[in-house]
Amino acid sequence: MALDSRFYDFKGSQTLRALSAICGFDLSEATDAEISGIAAAGLAGPGDICFHEGNAKTAANVSATATACFVKEASAEGLPEGVIPLVVAIPRLAHIHAAEALFELKSWSAEGDDASIHPDAEIAPGVFIGAGASIGAGSVIGPNVVIGPGVQIGMGTKIGANASIRCALIGNHVNILSGARIGESGFGVTSGPEGAVDVPQWGRVIIQDYVMIGGNTCIDRGAFSDTIVGERSKIDNLVQIGHNVVIGRNVLMASFSGISGTVNVGDGVLMGGRVGIADHLEIGEGAILTADAGVMSNVPAGETWGGRPAKPFRQFLREVAWLQRQVKRGKKPSV
Amino acid sequence: MALDSRFYDFKGSQTLRALSAICGFDLSEATDAEISGIAAAGLAGPGDICFHEGNAKTAANVSATATACFVKEASAEGLPEGVIPLVVAIPRLAHIHAAEALFELKSWSAEGDDASIHPDAEIAPGVFIGAGASIGAGSVIGPNVVIGPGVQIGMGTKIGANASIRCALIGNHVNILSGARIGESGFGVTSGPEGAVDVPQWGRVIIQDYVMIGGNTCIDRGAFSDTIVGERSKIDNLVQIGHNVVIGRNVLMASFSGISGTVNVGDGVLMGGRVGIADHLEIGEGAILTADAGVMSNVPAGETWGGRPAKPFRQFLREVAWLQRQVKRGKKPSV
Amino acid sequence: MALDSRFYDFKGSQTLRALSAICGFDLSEATDAEISGIAAAGLAGPGDICFHEGNAKTAANVSATATACFVKEASAEGLPEGVIPLVVAIPRLAHIHAAEALFELKSWSAEGDDASIHPDAEIAPGVFIGAGASIGAGSVIGPNVVIGPGVQIGMGTKIGANASIRCALIGNHVNILSGARIGESGFGVTSGPEGAVDVPQWGRVIIQDYVMIGGNTCIDRGAFSDTIVGERSKIDNLVQIGHNVVIGRNVLMASFSGISGTVNVGDGVLMGGRVGIADHLEIGEGAILTADAGVMSNVPAGETWGGRPAKPFRQFLREVAWLQRQVKRGKKPSV
Repeated sequence: MALDSRFYDFKGSQTLRALSAICGFDLSEATDAEISGIAAAGLAGPGDICFHEGNAKTAANVSATATACFVKEASAEGLPEGVIPLVVAIPRLAHIHAAEALFELKSWSAEGDDASIHPDAEIAPGVFIGAGASIGAGSVIGPNVVIGPGVQIGMGTKIGANASIRCALIGNHVNILSGARIGESGFGVTSGPEGAVDVPQWGRVIIQDYVMIGGNTCIDRGAFSDTIVGERSKIDNLVQIGHNVVIGRNVLMASFSGISGTVNVGDGVLMGGRVGIADHLEIGEGAILTADAGVMSNVPAGETWGGRPAKPFRQFLREVAWLQRQVKRGKKPSV
Repeated sequence: MALDSRFYDFKGSQTLRALSAICGFDLSEATDAEISGIAAAGLAGPGDICFHEGNAKTAANVSATATACFVKEASAEGLPEGVIPLVVAIPRLAHIHAAEALFELKSWSAEGDDASIHPDAEIAPGVFIGAGASIGAGSVIGPNVVIGPGVQIGMGTKIGANASIRCALIGNHVNILSGARIGESGFGVTSGPEGAVDVPQWGRVIIQDYVMIGGNTCIDRGAFSDTIVGERSKIDNLVQIGHNVVIGRNVLMASFSGISGTVNVGDGVLMGGRVGIADHLEIGEGAILTADAGVMSNVPAGETWGGRPAKPFRQFLREVAWLQRQVKRGKKPSV
Repeated sequence: MALDSRFYDFKGSQTLRALSAICGFDLSEATDAEISGIAAAGLAGPGDICFHEGNAKTAANVSATATACFVKEASAEGLPEGVIPLVVAIPRLAHIHAAEALFELKSWSAEGDDASIHPDAEIAPGVFIGAGASIGAGSVIGPNVVIGPGVQIGMGTKIGANASIRCALIGNHVNILSGARIGESGFGVTSGPEGAVDVPQWGRVIIQDYVMIGGNTCIDRGAFSDTIVGERSKIDNLVQIGHNVVIGRNVLMASFSGISGTVNVGDGVLMGGRVGIADHLEIGEGAILTADAGVMSNVPAGETWGGRPAKPFRQFLREVAWLQRQVKRGKKPSV
């Protein structure tokens, strides 16, 4: 997968031979296979290099059209035929180095083509607009806002003071309040020989039409793919949305809600304040998560869950009430 | 109620006849009654248009001096005599449209009268100060701060870097740390025919003397009235205070505390970290809410509450201890 | 202790005689002892003035080399011999006044020596760099960032848009994302005759090499000493780190984690989202705090804790499971 060239510079293809020196793997045979893209293992295609950190069995899930895949020695034999195994001690770490040999995140103030600003857009003083960015008719950008290179903003959208946006496509009639941080690097960490290492994030954020995003809220860009907030979803202040999260339409999230990476949230889901959702979960359409719910498993569509760890809300309430009754009954436990 | 003209532009009065076309209601009789203001239903006066979403019985609580009120058909007969009922499917939505026909939030960089800056105030580079704003003697405004149109800042007040303030009156000797967001739109959402709709917020924030507000904390402006932080209250970093909240004097709030809309907090209340308070509650004077309390009901003055949902702290501790004893007693539950 | 002159201006020494007028204490004997520094009670040395708010017994822990110490009358006799007791009603409050007579925090835009910016550093538009600050080779400062006077930034470090840094020393290859607030005043409050009073904070923040700090995260400077984040520690968005916290190397903290003042966190500690740690605790090396843990006591090295209040994770899980079984057994409690 080629990365979105509005946000990432492509340095040019590399042969596996050249990458082997950079990433510290031995090529079993000299190969001039060209690598021109990176992707998540399941989605990699021709020319892509990916990585797999599971076992030999789950290695079968790596896309059969990927050109090459970093794997641990024990898992290499599990890769689909045709995918060149690149055996390394820490596949994710090797992949970081390969990705950085191919691509580079444009810096906030990257030079390049001029931004395209509609004459009917209102740009306050102190605003920074990066090269190649675009701002549509009737949009209003508040003072001291920072819009990174390549960011696309639709029509009738408002951005509050001191907000910052990078690696993002923003729709029409979106309302982003002051201090929101859109498109920062998701929280990815792996282990290197000297300790913890940041995992660069190569994706984007997509904000659809009529979305509201509260003050000082953070929405991280995807690792390889996109973090998406669907049409008319409304997000309060001080909310955290992790990388690769996909939020449907008409979702409401109150303050201090947080969604870990790679969660899918169905249309119309309601979250009270301080709801937390662990990574890689599915929240079904129309589900209600009550204030302070700590969601550690999938939530079926239409159900109301609460508590920590979260469970069906009635069950949570029964447990709260039962415990209270037991303890009120006497100072000495009656069991 | 006329809105504060320092923050909101008045577009001029409208007849109900004119509003009927904008808001989609049928006038039972042609009326040229003039509407010049908006208000919450209980506080509306002559010339005001308000809305009621309850039933026919609670409609009696609508102010008898209001000129007109959006209601559902079934509730219309409950309105006080003299209030013109405007029957619509979604009263709140119709009221949004009426309010927007009458008033408009000034944009961050609205043009107009010059700001009034005391010669003894210290204004750092990169600061934006909106039209009609005022900054008192001895106040110090940090770099890249954004002060919206009409904002009034007293004497000896300090504003940290990159903070933003709009629709707000700030007292003397206030200390607002970097990145705080004062006066953003509260989180109001209603349903429209196409999905979730933002409810515009028409009030202000009032910060009294000697208040401290931490870094990246958010204090939303009121819906129709004011969000107030009383004298000498001290608020930590990353706190959320919702619309219409009224906080007394000498209140302490630690990080990640959050107060939902329309809560009253008495003088001298102490909140540990991560306290959450549901909307429309009363926290009595001198109450203590321990770290992580999730308050779902009123808290009497002077009491200490904790737990989620919060209850008197001793009771919470007894429940925690009882549960622990039961489970420690044996691996098999003894019941 | 002399404060770091890069961040605080020294107004010159004061005799105790002069301070007595400022701070409202009676000198038992006229003394011209010179005070030139402030410090925490246990670390005060010659020329320092400190305060003690405990009883006569704990007053023995005040450093015997301190020149003078504010104490309550009942505790004065407990001070080590040679330390001049300064009897006042509220020792901390008197110390605030003494400290402010000696030192002053430089304002964000303090004038003075030019900053030192390496020619290979990349400084985006709208950046404010205070007097005496230093930025190393290869560092990249994003648009509208604010760097306070005297801040030292190493080589290859990146600062995201709209972030602000004061009273801080930042290492090499650090990555600070947009909107982070480094070096703000910690949350210190004491009581004065008219109500709550801010306790000024006189320390610094030290961020070691290869640290990552997420968007809108806040790290407060120390009260008298330093808040430290150790090498390669990785901190997510919207995290709060209080004054005097010392975090080791390779520590990971997920979103909404918060650490109260004066906590020590050992190397390699992992914190899930929304972990809270009460003040003055020790988290042992390699401990794991699961998402939403509310830590109220020390955690031994290598242990996994969870729940609120936090306990060993297995015990927490047993309690959760036991309670659920009891309540599921029947609608009527079976006890």
